[in-house]
Amino acid sequence: MRFATFSTSADPSPRLGILADRDTVVDLARALDGEVSVPSNLRDYIAAGDSVHARVTAAVNQVSSWPAEVTHPLANVTVHAPLRPGKIIGVGLNYVEHVEESSRSLDTDKELPERPVLFSKPGTAVVGPGEPIRHDGSMTQQLDWECELAVVIGAPARRVAECDALDHVFGYSITNDISARDQRRAGQWFFSKGQDSYAPLGPVVVTTDEIPDPHILHLALTVNGDERQNGNSKHMLFRVPRLIEDISSGVTLEPGDVIATGSPQGVGAAMDPPTFLQPGDVVSCTIENIGVLTNPVEAV
Amino acid sequence: MRFATFSTSADPSPRLGILADRDTVVDLARALDGEVSVPSNLRDYIAAGDSVHARVTAAVNQVSSWPAEVTHPLANVTVHAPLRPGKIIGVGLNYVEHVEESSRSLDTDKELPERPVLFSKPGTAVVGPGEPIRHDGSMTQQLDWECELAVVIGAPARRVAECDALDHVFGYSITNDISARDQRRAGQWFFSKGQDSYAPLGPVVVTTDEIPDPHILHLALTVNGDERQNGNSKHMLFRVPRLIEDISSGVTLEPGDVIATGSPQGVGAAMDPPTFLQPGDVVSCTIENIGVLTNPVEAV
Repeated sequence: MRFATFSTSADPSPRLGILADRDTVVDLARALDGEVSVPSNLRDYIAAGDSVHARVTAAVNQVSSWPAEVTHPLANVTVHAPLRPGKIIGVGLNYVEHVEESSRSLDTDKELPERPVLFSKPGTAVVGPGEPIRHDGSMTQQLDWECELAVVIGAPARRVAECDALDHVFGYSITNDISARDQRRAGQWFFSKGQDSYAPLGPVVVTTDEIPDPHILHLALTVNGDERQNGNSKHMLFRVPRLIEDISSGVTLEPGDVIATGSPQGVGAAMDPPTFLQPGDVVSCTIENIGVLTNPVEAV
Repeated sequence: MRFATFSTSADPSPRLGILADRDTVVDLARALDGEVSVPSNLRDYIAAGDSVHARVTAAVNQVSSWPAEVTHPLANVTVHAPLRPGKIIGVGLNYVEHVEESSRSLDTDKELPERPVLFSKPGTAVVGPGEPIRHDGSMTQQLDWECELAVVIGAPARRVAECDALDHVFGYSITNDISARDQRRAGQWFFSKGQDSYAPLGPVVVTTDEIPDPHILHLALTVNGDERQNGNSKHMLFRVPRLIEDISSGVTLEPGDVIATGSPQGVGAAMDPPTFLQPGDVVSCTIENIGVLTNPVEAV
């Protein structure tokens, strides 16, 4: 299933939906009214666990066509971030060519990391598709992009072995790991990567049954239509199961938490000359089998 | 007021309380039943805003002695972390002497930072008084301590000026900024500081009316009764209003969020020879006018 969080002009409070097809969203709570009690947002839905998801899946699979009163054309609704994670754990330097370009442009190590390079963004950094990425010209002249596969945690994960790790994944989404490169503080990435709007997320969360292998996905990013990144998740240095084993060895992952798995080469800091986001730019991240996440850049 | 979160053997679900005196906790919802509807946990209480807090304060101030059925001797209850923050933002290298000792022992810069050095810990890192700090000997040989004043945010703060910043503080607590020094990843502190149990918090949150000036507080830390840190919050490099202005220039602070304001000198990494926490150790952090936060170190 492909989960989306949406609102309509008639009802501006966000609702949980699934895509019926490319152009139609189903209001899940209304559609299953009387059959399954559906939590009102995706984080609560995931936290409710397998039994709720199994009942919803069974009910959804029985439907051949949805009645018009529980569906909306996607073009008529506002799609929000699919959820607000309790935490986002980012993985730096997780694609080989990006390690090389970063060592040239961002004074990071030239050697491949021996352990995942972990950082975090708070839930307040998340925005949805179409929402602006904030450009504060008084603070940064180096606002940069990174298209990344986002892993959405399902069952709680604490000290999980690599071989069991994918059982703790609910699904996948897209995130744009925005950085103000000039706001690192004594080398720490939190303030450069954790600001409001620096974690666009969406448009949907695709459950694992539709993406059994997260390491064969094409990723691309454009700025104003010009291609800047073009890679494949097969080139990840530390793959999803290894990341979950490593993170959960010390940090409990909870339902709805997100792992941003790192970016392929092609960031602005590594361009010649370095090129950064400006107000008025439009950034689009595309990941195969998930969708397109587009955000405008806006001066604040 | 001094807020605590507690449970009893008869009722193991945590409840919100205030201290009536050094030895007695008042069950706030029961005590004000019929007068004010009190949110069930401190984060929701703070998020409910000034009007609820003002009504609770007025009701509490009218009471000269609490009926026995709404109080418990502190010795008979379990005190938990006062709240689970949405995010904890840590400030590194925020006391002059600690900058110096860190440059000797932790390869950080010798110069005083020109901007606050910010990092973060997730809510999953929080434990309460008496709860164990996890010592995973297969992962770290360098588990270290840092006694810090914790600022608990009240009203949401976004782009707040220094002069208005203290209006956004609900109160103060104590946190022990635990680090596995050997788990920094490409210099990033998230995994070394963000693991489960690495953010002991408590025992109480003291509201700002009882601590009008957070920069005159004595801080001390002992390990097994031996003094390791002994400082005063007057030596902070970036003071609380400046920290709130700086963080909120990019990252929205929400009710219940915590800023860990940095540690004075005297960490284990800087001892000669370097000395780290071992299973069986007991660490106590004391901050004047707040209390004592004690945690055992336990092998996992």
